Amino acid sequence: MWRILVIHGPNLNLLGVREKNVYGDTPFAAINEQIRSGAEKMGIYVEIFQSNHEGEIIDRIHAALGKFDGLIINPGAYTHYSVAIRDAVAAVDIPTIEVHLSNVSSREDFRKESVIAPVCLGQISGLGPISYLLGLSGIVMHLEASKCQKSN
Amino acid sequence: MWRILVIHGPNLNLLGVREKNVYGDTPFAAINEQIRSGAEKMGIYVEIFQSNHEGEIIDRIHAALGKFDGLIINPGAYTHYSVAIRDAVAAVDIPTIEVHLSNVSSREDFRKESVIAPVCLGQISGLGPISYLLGLSGIVMHLEASKCQKSN
Amino acid sequence: MWRILVIHGPNLNLLGVREKNVYGDTPFAAINEQIRSGAEKMGIYVEIFQSNHEGEIIDRIHAALGKFDGLIINPGAYTHYSVAIRDAVAAVDIPTIEVHLSNVSSREDFRKESVIAPVCLGQISGLGPISYLLGLSGIVMHLEASKCQKSN
Amino acid sequence: MWRILVIHGPNLNLLGVREKNVYGDTPFAAINEQIRSGAEKMGIYVEIFQSNHEGEIIDRIHAALGKFDGLIINPGAYTHYSVAIRDAVAAVDIPTIEVHLSNVSSREDFRKESVIAPVCLGQISGLGPISYLLGLSGIVMHLEASKCQKSN
Amino acid sequence: MWRILVIHGPNLNLLGVREKNVYGDTPFAAINEQIRSGAEKMGIYVEIFQSNHEGEIIDRIHAALGKFDGLIINPGAYTHYSVAIRDAVAAVDIPTIEVHLSNVSSREDFRKESVIAPVCLGQISGLGPISYLLGLSGIVMHLEASKCQKSN
Amino acid sequence: MWRILVIHGPNLNLLGVREKNVYGDTPFAAINEQIRSGAEKMGIYVEIFQSNHEGEIIDRIHAALGKFDGLIINPGAYTHYSVAIRDAVAAVDIPTIEVHLSNVSSREDFRKESVIAPVCLGQISGLGPISYLLGLSGIVMHLEASKCQKSN
Amino acid sequence: MWRILVIHGPNLNLLGVREKNVYGDTPFAAINEQIRSGAEKMGIYVEIFQSNHEGEIIDRIHAALGKFDGLIINPGAYTHYSVAIRDAVAAVDIPTIEVHLSNVSSREDFRKESVIAPVCLGQISGLGPISYLLGLSGIVMHLEASKCQKSN
Amino acid sequence: MWRILVIHGPNLNLLGVREKNVYGDTPFAAINEQIRSGAEKMGIYVEIFQSNHEGEIIDRIHAALGKFDGLIINPGAYTHYSVAIRDAVAAVDIPTIEVHLSNVSSREDFRKESVIAPVCLGQISGLGPISYLLGLSGIVMHLEASKCQKSN
Amino acid sequence: MWRILVIHGPNLNLLGVREKNVYGDTPFAAINEQIRSGAEKMGIYVEIFQSNHEGEIIDRIHAALGKFDGLIINPGAYTHYSVAIRDAVAAVDIPTIEVHLSNVSSREDFRKESVIAPVCLGQISGLGPISYLLGLSGIVMHLEASKCQKSN
Amino acid sequence: MWRILVIHGPNLNLLGVREKNVYGDTPFAAINEQIRSGAEKMGIYVEIFQSNHEGEIIDRIHAALGKFDGLIINPGAYTHYSVAIRDAVAAVDIPTIEVHLSNVSSREDFRKESVIAPVCLGQISGLGPISYLLGLSGIVMHLEASKCQKSN
Amino acid sequence: MWRILVIHGPNLNLLGVREKNVYGDTPFAAINEQIRSGAEKMGIYVEIFQSNHEGEIIDRIHAALGKFDGLIINPGAYTHYSVAIRDAVAAVDIPTIEVHLSNVSSREDFRKESVIAPVCLGQISGLGPISYLLGLSGIVMHLEASKCQKSN
Amino acid sequence: MWRILVIHGPNLNLLGVREKNVYGDTPFAAINEQIRSGAEKMGIYVEIFQSNHEGEIIDRIHAALGKFDGLIINPGAYTHYSVAIRDAVAAVDIPTIEVHLSNVSSREDFRKESVIAPVCLGQISGLGPISYLLGLSGIVMHLEASKCQKSN
Repeated sequence: MWRILVIHGPNLNLLGVREKNVYGDTPFAAINEQIRSGAEKMGIYVEIFQSNHEGEIIDRIHAALGKFDGLIINPGAYTHYSVAIRDAVAAVDIPTIEVHLSNVSSREDFRKESVIAPVCLGQISGLGPISYLLGLSGIVMHLEASKCQKSN
Repeated sequence: MWRILVIHGPNLNLLGVREKNVYGDTPFAAINEQIRSGAEKMGIYVEIFQSNHEGEIIDRIHAALGKFDGLIINPGAYTHYSVAIRDAVAAVDIPTIEVHLSNVSSREDFRKESVIAPVCLGQISGLGPISYLLGLSGIVMHLEASKCQKSN
Repeated sequence: MWRILVIHGPNLNLLGVREKNVYGDTPFAAINEQIRSGAEKMGIYVEIFQSNHEGEIIDRIHAALGKFDGLIINPGAYTHYSVAIRDAVAAVDIPTIEVHLSNVSSREDFRKESVIAPVCLGQISGLGPISYLLGLSGIVMHLEASKCQKSN
Repeated sequence: MWRILVIHGPNLNLLGVREKNVYGDTPFAAINEQIRSGAEKMGIYVEIFQSNHEGEIIDRIHAALGKFDGLIINPGAYTHYSVAIRDAVAAVDIPTIEVHLSNVSSREDFRKESVIAPVCLGQISGLGPISYLLGLSGIVMHLEASKCQKSN
Repeated sequence: MWRILVIHGPNLNLLGVREKNVYGDTPFAAINEQIRSGAEKMGIYVEIFQSNHEGEIIDRIHAALGKFDGLIINPGAYTHYSVAIRDAVAAVDIPTIEVHLSNVSSREDFRKESVIAPVCLGQISGLGPISYLLGLSGIVMHLEASKCQKSN
Repeated sequence: MWRILVIHGPNLNLLGVREKNVYGDTPFAAINEQIRSGAEKMGIYVEIFQSNHEGEIIDRIHAALGKFDGLIINPGAYTHYSVAIRDAVAAVDIPTIEVHLSNVSSREDFRKESVIAPVCLGQISGLGPISYLLGLSGIVMHLEASKCQKSN
Repeated sequence: MWRILVIHGPNLNLLGVREKNVYGDTPFAAINEQIRSGAEKMGIYVEIFQSNHEGEIIDRIHAALGKFDGLIINPGAYTHYSVAIRDAVAAVDIPTIEVHLSNVSSREDFRKESVIAPVCLGQISGLGPISYLLGLSGIVMHLEASKCQKSN
Repeated sequence: MWRILVIHGPNLNLLGVREKNVYGDTPFAAINEQIRSGAEKMGIYVEIFQSNHEGEIIDRIHAALGKFDGLIINPGAYTHYSVAIRDAVAAVDIPTIEVHLSNVSSREDFRKESVIAPVCLGQISGLGPISYLLGLSGIVMHLEASKCQKSN
Repeated sequence: MWRILVIHGPNLNLLGVREKNVYGDTPFAAINEQIRSGAEKMGIYVEIFQSNHEGEIIDRIHAALGKFDGLIINPGAYTHYSVAIRDAVAAVDIPTIEVHLSNVSSREDFRKESVIAPVCLGQISGLGPISYLLGLSGIVMHLEASKCQKSN
Repeated sequence: MWRILVIHGPNLNLLGVREKNVYGDTPFAAINEQIRSGAEKMGIYVEIFQSNHEGEIIDRIHAALGKFDGLIINPGAYTHYSVAIRDAVAAVDIPTIEVHLSNVSSREDFRKESVIAPVCLGQISGLGPISYLLGLSGIVMHLEASKCQKSN
Repeated sequence: MWRILVIHGPNLNLLGVREKNVYGDTPFAAINEQIRSGAEKMGIYVEIFQSNHEGEIIDRIHAALGKFDGLIINPGAYTHYSVAIRDAVAAVDIPTIEVHLSNVSSREDFRKESVIAPVCLGQISGLGPISYLLGLSGIVMHLEASKCQKSN
Repeated sequence: MWRILVIHGPNLNLLGVREKNVYGDTPFAAINEQIRSGAEKMGIYVEIFQSNHEGEIIDRIHAALGKFDGLIINPGAYTHYSVAIRDAVAAVDIPTIEVHLSNVSSREDFRKESVIAPVCLGQISGLGPISYLLGLSGIVMHLEASKCQKSN
């Protein structure tokens, strides 16, 4: 049974409350509910974590070492400058997919660059809560495929 | 039954033959087989098209008007400069997801920018053939969600 | 009787069908009708060509050598990167006016630069279908003026 | 009867006297004569104004409010830095076409950008005195078309 | 009675102790005293918060939702890179004025850009402790004016 | 009794007439009325000057030498390129506050930089006519504080 | 017997007809004659291909897989932006030399960068038709040297 | 007898009054006195003009046509952006030397570029009032040398 | 007896566990042991602090005021963007040396710039754990030298 | 009999000793042997010069005036910044080909630009010692062709 | 009697021999003759030095310490990158004027920046050999003026 | 016994004579004395070399091959542009530490980049003569550690 940690970055706790035109109107709790229900269907163990603190996110990634098989991370605004989170993801070397609710490439210029994506497996963006669900599927498919390769 | 068009851009026909360290060793035909089989499981109609010609890709996108409900496009090298394909995607206004086999953000600098992504729904990258399968799931989930909203 | 070739670049065939807020709602056929009718009034021979293929546009420009006295070209998205079309225009050395329906300088930053304009006689933009009509008038006035100068 | 104001920016008063290789050898007075004669043929009222003073040009644009239906402006060197003239054009909100005698895109790099064009209807460049005549035609065609739309 | 939250960013707690040539010699406590006394005179309720932690500042902004009518924020060094604080300010959508003690535009180049200012109402800088007092006056005048408009 | 000169730059004379969505709908005369009435309450002498001419603004700043204790300047479009006005402000060395009606940092990129701000005391922006009133208060508070320091 | 494919990019078919000051006055057919005659002397098999279509050039490179031992490519204008041709050259992994007739480094700035050169063996430019002949010699010398190394 | 026009740009009228650490403490009148006295010694006719108005400087340059053999211009702050003055100097085609009191290359970055220098004969900077005197000598030596060449 | 505070930034706690090819295989505890043992030999008091939280690092630097004579800081990823830590170092004005295990100038481009180094005494990088030991020696030698100068 | 001077820039004397993965393992003496032997076969006079001193290379180029018909130069690291060598090549005006052993366009970014190439006839790179041999052939073919043209 | 050292940088020894369209046709010896004769007239001692070697120029500047009162330097191509010469000029702290024969601001972009000028007194350019003569006059006038100031 | 070569770049011979505020007042000879005395204490052989000539420095680095175990280099101004010295350091492949007296990151922008550092082991800067002593210690500690690793 795969163990996946889902990390929400800063301000995502306000989802569904504000700026609905950008991030959609699904409340944060409902998104987490969708993630948990999706995980259950896929038969995987999932834990969800949200913090507005860069340091707490780093601590949580460190703590995942040996406890989780994959990470889904929506680094929110930290996407664009937190080299510290990037280094944390690179350091623990757990397969990670970066997800975004909105299509970051069609917003402000500074949102086009992710300093974290280069050390992730890949990136999924622009599909609202669906981004998280695809992230879960993607990480599981990736883990299954890697397991196959190794067992060969 | 949703009708989805999958477009492969230039050089993707050589997949599995060359540069396997970058693009993986699954042959092009096998990837298409996975797409078709995935589509069948989801109960959707899928058509697959590959071309090395920018103009043919544009013509094909135009021809999709009224014939397809969604597009999955891996624009390959055209990702980085074909404003003409961007304008075609914007013009037909069919929900489109851009997919990439490799993690474009961890390669050469010029591969970090997609001129096409801003007019797409979103982007999925870095997961090898899984990127296409997530693309299919994603577009279908999006179409279902939009249908729900409209029917309300 | 002056012979003018009008070239429409990629996606212009969809005019009047899509993105009317940017390009106006006059259908492509109607614009061509206006061009033909305008040409008739001015007593000039006009031919109209549209293609989404960069290569076909280049071939057509080459073929104009010795057959046409002037070119009106709306390179569409190719405006911003097709050095190949630029070189074709420079090579045939037929007086050419670049036209645009929309005001390219008030749109995305990348639309502000034309790689083709430096080898044209001039540029007319932002006036919708009127841009083409002014282009016809302009090229004819220019040809007349050059003829005068030479005959002196 | 449409009322059009033609504004010539700095140094244009020296036309035909100096730098003929760049701007042609038609004297300034002759160009104005062509503009007036063209206007007469089109049945429109035209006024012509030249100044080397940024402030006077702004004052003149303000004074056009309610007195003119359209503006033709060749901002000369101010094209490239006068945000103040740009704001004046935007403020009075009279349909405006920017014209240039030379092909600005084939000269020094700094002449490629117009800070004024984004708030104009469009731009006509590179055709010598013909640029002004096309500007007159263009603004009139635009005004006629707008009138039609409104009356519908 | 308007409720205003004043937020001081990192290192501002050392005011009056160090680098007096840049930030002046008024101690931090004295500035807060001036703010409180100014608020009392204006008849408004004010709360003051200081933290060196980006995450705590974000948490505090979130907590202001429904509790405060306006924010005065001096983001200190976070001004120049904390997209996360920017997103927090944008998310809670409480009228906010950014203030600075020093004239940021006359210091190092990297201090010239504020990533937070674009989502604020406005910015006041360079006047030492007076910046905060003007911030208070400004936010109150703005709230009064908005109330008037709504009641009309 | 402090003597303050308020300078309005280009196009500000059209306030309340045009582009109300950007600059608000308070007419220019009404803003000046607010400034005068605010000055009266504060017991200061105020003079107001508006010009669209860069040179006239410079002349006026020079003429303020020895006649005014402080300057409030809204340089309008000149904010972004008039090094000449910057040098004038630096030359007369009268305490100056730059004010803006709109939040310049949330508009076009080129409006983010002020070439004049580095030689001013500070900057107040984004609060509509309130910006001017805070400017008056700010300059007076600054002058009082400086006077205190000198008398010590 | 080495098999070499020579590819001419866009507009090269017009050689000797136009812009002789830049590209010399040897007609295209004569250059090809020189290439064929040179190849004959070196005892190698040569095929020559010209196209103005990016897609056709890519198709041709793909088709060279297993049929040719070396490529000589003058990508013309595509040199500067065709990442798709670059990827094709990288994908087939046939030793390739990029050649240019003119000295690209002494022309317009945008001609200084080749997006294709990094995946080629090397580059020869500026020597007119001689560039092609040196390309042939170079590729043959390289193939001979590689063969030696392998046979050791 | 050579006729030379000396033009002082904006803020130079305040020389010797303010910012003496940058521009020296010689009053403006004294500098002009030095220029006049220097001219007398060299046996040349000199006229001196100062204005803070870009437009007036342009008008004055135009008026110099046929009246003066050489220009000495210190464009002050206009050095860095007045393309209009540049075009005026280029248009009248009178030999011109640009002078500066201070060493512009050791001040703010934006003062390093002169948009006017490329159309002048040369530039003299950094030597205080001596810059003007060398400018006079230089222009006269240049005029003498040109006269010699022509008479040969 | 000199009192030195050694601060390790984010992710350094994972040293020796992960990415050994970049940071070496000495475990974090072993490095600290080396630092303590080195300090003992030099006869200095040393305290060691590690945190992944930018805010905690700032708090710790503030707390060092009056308690420590020198700082050794390896800001890890914060090196490249934490203006807040820079301002903290500048504010407490304790002699500080920035150290790095790896040679930051030979890694990714964004690691080449340190926003903190300009307010430090100096920088030591690229020598693995030796960097810290040299840092200790360096700060002590600097403190001794300063003490000498003052006592003279 | 053509006289050719071959110039090797800095560090090329170490060829074959170090960094063989970049520059190949042919020793410097062996390359020179190949050059001499090639020259003999072509019936040309060749001289070879190596220096690590920019000034000596310039002196040598000057000394070639009237003594050599062509230059082959591998400027090594000076390629990227020695404007002085560029000016020397331009000054003596002897036909020059720039050669490189490695494919400079596939190495560090700063190696992509040659400040010398624009004043050379052309450039040959990436073919190891073959680059020099092609350089010899190329310069001879060029000299022969020029001689033919002149004798016509 | 003032002692002045005149330093000519690389390639200036070829003056009058080559590239006369850029640098004029006065031979190097003749320019030096003009300098010596000018110096004699001014009653100053002058020494002239030319080298193509950056290191020799630096050595010569060092050797001038205590031997010369002023320097005239035309750094030639080293103007644009020799920070080492800049540091030498700054180190000896002898009043220095940078001179150029041609108008560097109207040539290639890279010639617009001087890394040496910021540490000189000033710069004189574009007047051919006259630049040197003005340099001599300028340095003498400057030395006289400084002497006056000191003696007061 | 380790053999270390210490190389001082241009202008360092003037240390203690000029610009003491930047480089300190320890004379060059005294620094060398400190280096020699430090080396003696560490029981290592040290040689010291200074040159203002880029070429001599390269020659010296080449000559160190097989004669020295480590290099300490302060490249002075060459730090910022001498790719030739960089290539020399890379070519001889002797462990090298770059040292600087001043804190280069807090000076002019162009001093922030070292083209040489990426091929060195590491960099030590900002500590005055102490930088050299730490460099000696660092290189010795590094050599000892490498020896240990090899002997294991």
